[in-house]
Amino acid sequence: MAPATYLLGVDLGGTNIVVGAMPDDGTAMHGVHSEPTHAEDGADGVTARIVRMIEQTIEATVAETGITRAQFRGVGIGAPGPLDLDTGVVLITPNLGWVNYPLRDRVSAAVGLPAALDNDANCATLGEWWIGAARGARHVIGLTIGTGIGGGLILDGAVYHGASGIAGELGHTSIETNGRRCNCGNYGCLEAYASGPAIATRAREALGGGEASLLPALVDGDLSRITAQTVYQAAEQGDLVARQVVRDTAQFLGTGIANLLNIFNPEVVVIAGGVTQAGAALFEPLRAEVRRRAFKPAVDACRIVPGELPGTAGVAGAIANFVARHP
Amino acid sequence: MAPATYLLGVDLGGTNIVVGAMPDDGTAMHGVHSEPTHAEDGADGVTARIVRMIEQTIEATVAETGITRAQFRGVGIGAPGPLDLDTGVVLITPNLGWVNYPLRDRVSAAVGLPAALDNDANCATLGEWWIGAARGARHVIGLTIGTGIGGGLILDGAVYHGASGIAGELGHTSIETNGRRCNCGNYGCLEAYASGPAIATRAREALGGGEASLLPALVDGDLSRITAQTVYQAAEQGDLVARQVVRDTAQFLGTGIANLLNIFNPEVVVIAGGVTQAGAALFEPLRAEVRRRAFKPAVDACRIVPGELPGTAGVAGAIANFVARHP
Repeated sequence: MAPATYLLGVDLGGTNIVVGAMPDDGTAMHGVHSEPTHAEDGADGVTARIVRMIEQTIEATVAETGITRAQFRGVGIGAPGPLDLDTGVVLITPNLGWVNYPLRDRVSAAVGLPAALDNDANCATLGEWWIGAARGARHVIGLTIGTGIGGGLILDGAVYHGASGIAGELGHTSIETNGRRCNCGNYGCLEAYASGPAIATRAREALGGGEASLLPALVDGDLSRITAQTVYQAAEQGDLVARQVVRDTAQFLGTGIANLLNIFNPEVVVIAGGVTQAGAALFEPLRAEVRRRAFKPAVDACRIVPGELPGTAGVAGAIANFVARHP
Repeated sequence: MAPATYLLGVDLGGTNIVVGAMPDDGTAMHGVHSEPTHAEDGADGVTARIVRMIEQTIEATVAETGITRAQFRGVGIGAPGPLDLDTGVVLITPNLGWVNYPLRDRVSAAVGLPAALDNDANCATLGEWWIGAARGARHVIGLTIGTGIGGGLILDGAVYHGASGIAGELGHTSIETNGRRCNCGNYGCLEAYASGPAIATRAREALGGGEASLLPALVDGDLSRITAQTVYQAAEQGDLVARQVVRDTAQFLGTGIANLLNIFNPEVVVIAGGVTQAGAALFEPLRAEVRRRAFKPAVDACRIVPGELPGTAGVAGAIANFVARHP
């Protein structure tokens, strides 16, 4: 039997970079570590950091498993988009400030291995599909709810990219025609209501009426420090203002996800990201809202579940993307 | 060279049945005719009508082209859903009142040819993709706006059906979380704002304020007779109330279609159905609204166009579906 081959995965975010290694059967992850991105170092500086992290992961994996360096056959990279998937170029990243940067080939040349690039949200969904909460499904919708709301689509057993590689912007679907202005320029986007910062904003607005709430005490009176996590914490302690914000969040997300059920009739919706730490307090009213709205056959066909790979779905998916492109 | 083979296409609607024949290269349509569905005759009665219409189309095509009856090799059928695509069974049709009716096999047995069944909205999109406004594209969104708003999806070059065959319910995506109640039970659906009857309802509501308008005169004072067509007619004559209704329609449709651009990044959105007879009065503000809302790369990649096969897209698509399933 030929020795197993290993792959390296990189999840590049605006705040952190995560790198890890996996055998090609996806049964383990080795040498996982995270570092701040330090976008201010520029594209070449960040790339140098990625390459150094890859070398550390290779060393750690060799030490842990006893494999040789020659058993690594490639690097998968997930990055914020939009990207040119064919050339492996990052076209624009508002978070990082890069324009037309050939990330895939820079990393490949520095590490001496072939590389593959896809969108970070697609990679997160792909990871959950390969070894996480959506294993075995043919039609999967992935949502990552954090600072923004990212989306990924697995349709008929493959990542769906659309005509120019930017499909799956599920956070930028309007659920209020004349609603809140979104960072993207549109009005009423799901992201403008249900991302972490949007949840915090709605809580601050709700406090504006002067109602009694635990929230101000939880942030020592500095309302600017309210986060989605503070809101869920207060809700758990019975705070009525926070509970209403959580209910509204479930309604907004439920509207957006019911739309996705009627559009895609998927088997699984996987929701990942910081906001899902709220657990049942989020998922139960969210599922109820989806049931209230979507077509029954679509509801019956679909599980709505939290991701199973917090922090590493993007690394696993970047590797799965490499394997799909270099079988 | 073997003689060309011919296919028969059936577009079964709640109001009318359309039947026609085409050679397998899609270059012509013969013997097209339409009859009222007469749903009150029940499933067997309507099926007998379909079979009789097919026989008439065969006779007309033989007379027109000089081909023989033996050159017909199958029947494609588009029907309102939900359907079981594998068994060719109509599961439920609210419009027709059928439950678990084996339409495909009944037609096949009566005509003596193999048959294939798909959803009517999918067939309309498939027809425009095969020989109409979306020829040559890989990613196509189809909307048929009439009494309701139907949707069809061509993704990566194939009709997308989802996990249980009901994907593509694009009219039942909410663009107002707490908006108008839709017939489907959801709130704020695109269909509840921009279908033909919804346009008429909004016009009647706008007249409630007692503003001066040409609309009452166009329907002899009987506001219940206002249709989407009346509204477009009044708008063309400069009526301010009607113009506002048309602008609002473009905004609602623009919101829904911008969502579809951000989700799918398609090359073409084809819009068919009675409401598109408004032409530029609808399409120009609609395109402007989509540009205002969707991501620029998605807007740049996509044409938003009227269908090119009014009345026959469903027949052509039912035939294309047969050919895809019986190559």
